[in-house]
Amino acid sequence: MAIRVAVLGCGIVGGGVVKLIREHHESLAARVGAPVELARVLERDLARAKAAGVDDNRVTSDPAQVLDDPSIDVVVEVMGGIEPALSFVERAIRNKKSVVTANKMLLAAHGARLFSLARECGVDLAFEASVGGGIPIIRVLRDALVGDRVEALQGIVNGTCNFMLTRMCDDGLSFDEALHEAQAKGFAEAEPSLDVDGHDAAHKLVVLATLAFGAKLDGFHVFTEGIRSIEPIDHRFAARWGFRIKHLAIGAERAGALELRVHPALVSTASTLASVGGVLNAIALQGHSLGPALLSGRGAGERPTAVSVVGDIADVARAKVLGVPGISLRGLQLNERKVLPTDDVETRYYLRFQVFDRPGVLARITGALGDARVSIEQMVQEGRGDESGSPVQVVMLTHVARERDVRAALQFLSVLDFVAKPVCLIRVHG
Amino acid sequence: MAIRVAVLGCGIVGGGVVKLIREHHESLAARVGAPVELARVLERDLARAKAAGVDDNRVTSDPAQVLDDPSIDVVVEVMGGIEPALSFVERAIRNKKSVVTANKMLLAAHGARLFSLARECGVDLAFEASVGGGIPIIRVLRDALVGDRVEALQGIVNGTCNFMLTRMCDDGLSFDEALHEAQAKGFAEAEPSLDVDGHDAAHKLVVLATLAFGAKLDGFHVFTEGIRSIEPIDHRFAARWGFRIKHLAIGAERAGALELRVHPALVSTASTLASVGGVLNAIALQGHSLGPALLSGRGAGERPTAVSVVGDIADVARAKVLGVPGISLRGLQLNERKVLPTDDVETRYYLRFQVFDRPGVLARITGALGDARVSIEQMVQEGRGDESGSPVQVVMLTHVARERDVRAALQFLSVLDFVAKPVCLIRVHG
Repeated sequence: MAIRVAVLGCGIVGGGVVKLIREHHESLAARVGAPVELARVLERDLARAKAAGVDDNRVTSDPAQVLDDPSIDVVVEVMGGIEPALSFVERAIRNKKSVVTANKMLLAAHGARLFSLARECGVDLAFEASVGGGIPIIRVLRDALVGDRVEALQGIVNGTCNFMLTRMCDDGLSFDEALHEAQAKGFAEAEPSLDVDGHDAAHKLVVLATLAFGAKLDGFHVFTEGIRSIEPIDHRFAARWGFRIKHLAIGAERAGALELRVHPALVSTASTLASVGGVLNAIALQGHSLGPALLSGRGAGERPTAVSVVGDIADVARAKVLGVPGISLRGLQLNERKVLPTDDVETRYYLRFQVFDRPGVLARITGALGDARVSIEQMVQEGRGDESGSPVQVVMLTHVARERDVRAALQFLSVLDFVAKPVCLIRVHG
Repeated sequence: MAIRVAVLGCGIVGGGVVKLIREHHESLAARVGAPVELARVLERDLARAKAAGVDDNRVTSDPAQVLDDPSIDVVVEVMGGIEPALSFVERAIRNKKSVVTANKMLLAAHGARLFSLARECGVDLAFEASVGGGIPIIRVLRDALVGDRVEALQGIVNGTCNFMLTRMCDDGLSFDEALHEAQAKGFAEAEPSLDVDGHDAAHKLVVLATLAFGAKLDGFHVFTEGIRSIEPIDHRFAARWGFRIKHLAIGAERAGALELRVHPALVSTASTLASVGGVLNAIALQGHSLGPALLSGRGAGERPTAVSVVGDIADVARAKVLGVPGISLRGLQLNERKVLPTDDVETRYYLRFQVFDRPGVLARITGALGDARVSIEQMVQEGRGDESGSPVQVVMLTHVARERDVRAALQFLSVLDFVAKPVCLIRVHG
């Protein structure tokens, strides 16, 4: 008996999945113990399906022909977005089909509930492709670390941000120039907010943290900052002080609570994370017993993501053949977890003030920070006040401070008349 | 019904396994679907077993009490070496016990045969801990890449070499100083040959290549060079030309054959592999569809390696509970593969000649290389001939050349009277 797979959506990833199932038919069959057959593709655009080499008679635009057909064993959801993906996935699960999804937005909003539904219905819900494209991070968190617990993780999980920051850092591009190039190369959407404002990374962090820390986080609103406020001067000062700027998704156990945040960060140039450039993604882990570990690879694109989907298809198909569907979720224990308020974060800070160069300004800034118990490690003023009255840049690194205290000081300073523009704040990682 | 585990050898890794099974009893049981119980430890040294917290009545020095006891489900072999490990593993498999091993020497010599025996006997043979300590590379090659094929891999798989090279490169230590420090810190054995001469890395390459390229390589003698001939000046020139020296295990598909080699290599400082320092290990992969990927982490030590062993125990125990023992080897197809002769390797070379500075020497060297079709990219002479007659260093980088041609030229030059010492040859990676 063949395992019959249906793919919802024949876009970039869906097309890649269709091709890989065909190309690796033999090794898949050997691995699964039965042939894996592409039975149906849900897609309105016949040309798209044709381009991926799908026979016309396997393409349908009617969800019922996929979701309610008892002959379909595995449903692959690569449509993205919440609806109709959510309804389709729920319906497939209730109809006892195992589901493979690449949809981080869906999992961030409804993951814990869907895992629980899949367990009730005795099917698998696999999601390697939802984070880090071809990087097998989900498999590692789920299977390899059963004899350990994760203490912290840091991910470069948005390829668009990483590409743009790499170009800005290495080649001096501005944000706008880097964005235009990313759009021209197909690395960024026409409407780039999901990527450059950090929301995509936040969805992925929720998926990672659910698994790494066993946390129920459905719909949790992670503290999120994007990369719009970073200017060439920030890359220059970061480099001068031995750092590169990376957009990080950070999760950690802190005194019984979880710390979750997504923002740009200064990362030591000596660290492996700093060397992950361009559209590559990476996830660094600290395991209690394992110590530090890092996985990196292509975070997006047709083929890498499709490799993850096909690995998942092989797993859930094999479980079905062996008569043990639902096995991938065995041992997944999710609990309500307290998430630390962002105010309680403690880290070092990079601060760049744009101020009018008047007597006493530096004293006012350092005084306000000192009053808030924020201690400065080093400081540089770039430029001098001149007749034109254009502002100067005051750039500093603090010692470890509390977010609440830093914010209080910045709040106090923001209304003073020598402040020309809002401060640029970047947290330092590690 | 509990799953009963026996551990052969209560050394560093064995002790770590015993501790993790105890500490993660609950999550293991949830994952496996039954309690996982440490039933017996084969160990002559009672004090060692006691130190790991094993009850005296569970310790035995009689192999039969472990290998022939039908109540034992899983045997964990962490003794190392060929015998008696080989006999014990074979006996356990024939007695229908699944085996988890960390023994790369055993697998390099007998892996394909043991996998085949395990399949015949319907049990699992899991070996995540044999390469890269806590890095889940075996799982990734075996499970995640079923929809892809590996085109090449490069591993930093010996922590002793990496620690020593890192200290030599960053802090200017000599080989002997670095070795003494590694020994003092417990990173190197009193008899360090297995590590510093590259044999350990060669064993691990055989294990990786078996899985990555589906090759039967039992007992294959990989071309292997260690790090003894590298001197501080080589690190200095490597840095000057934008490289770091790493000890690499390299495997690749080349025109239908396999390329397998273990040696020090110049790696671009911009690459992620170059940033993997100290005792860390890393494996870089190039998948046909996946593109580049990298996994890094601690390659040795009690805890990281034990995490891998316990992940394997969970897998094989779960398979046993589900009534599908042997599942981990499903789809593993090994074939006889041709291995490319080292003479056919094509790469760039770093060459350091130590010669007496007489007129015409440079012309003789460059002439011999030119005659052998080895083209020089850049060259530096350090020092000048003086009264003392001490030799000078001539250091160069070649363009891509064939190993056969480089060797022919070096052979020709080696017997000339201006050559003070054997040439130092380091291949350039990438």
